Amino acid sequence: MLLRPATRADLPAVLALLADEERVVDPASVTVTAAYERAFADIEADPRNEMLVLVDDSAGGPVVGCLQATYIPGLGKGGAERALIEAVRIRADRRGGGLGRELMSRAVARARARGCALVQLTSNKSRTDAHRFYASLGFARSHDGFKLTL
Amino acid sequence: MLLRPATRADLPAVLALLADEERVVDPASVTVTAAYERAFADIEADPRNEMLVLVDDSAGGPVVGCLQATYIPGLGKGGAERALIEAVRIRADRRGGGLGRELMSRAVARARARGCALVQLTSNKSRTDAHRFYASLGFARSHDGFKLTL
Repeated sequence: MLLRPATRADLPAVLALLADEERVVDPASVTVTAAYERAFADIEADPRNEMLVLVDDSAGGPVVGCLQATYIPGLGKGGAERALIEAVRIRADRRGGGLGRELMSRAVARARARGCALVQLTSNKSRTDAHRFYASLGFARSHDGFKLTL
Repeated sequence: MLLRPATRADLPAVLALLADEERVVDPASVTVTAAYERAFADIEADPRNEMLVLVDDSAGGPVVGCLQATYIPGLGKGGAERALIEAVRIRADRRGGGLGRELMSRAVARARARGCALVQLTSNKSRTDAHRFYASLGFARSHDGFKLTL
């Protein structure tokens, strides 16, 4: 498996993963709107954001997982960056085989190599399976996550 | 009250607020290390990060509150940015008078004006007073927040 920043050519596959809740979405069926083009270009151009894709290089290179990492400068933690992880996905037909662990472990190693003092993420309170998964990776469920839709 | 991005001259006051858990810390007593200088310069130079300070312009301009906002591009929410808020502080001797509400309301308005689709934050599970405060501002406590110290 290979973890690398997504390129524009991966955008349909990433959007398919983000739309995939229960079953595989065909990247060819995804409409890449101008707004998604802009958002992806913003991520790609920003040195503190990256959309990472997990690629099965033994099977022709399909994207089977993704996450977005944001590296946030701050005045806590002795002035070190923290990494925020969002949009963690493994393709529906590839779950349960350890790919999520591989994706997250590599993203954490990447944050550590960059000098981050902390990795943080939030997970919907209903997703108890995901909570066990993050706890098994060493994450502490120490906070409540609040969202306000504008 | 005035809300504005912090300048380098505000850095001792902001570090004093961040060190202030229960009682006021004198900005003159704060050591501004090279690491904090760098971190603040990183925030100030990044168009997707800002350290906002709440200033009492009727009382000689002291900084009485702060928060950091990070504007995150993403492929959810139709490609709109989301705002992450961290490091929310009101100076210990000015709490209980509505300044926290003013600080947060203005930061939310700022995110809305920028076109953000969502504002999000996390709060330690022990801080039930803060949870009531965020709920009263319309935030939904929908997620659990996970942290991994590196």
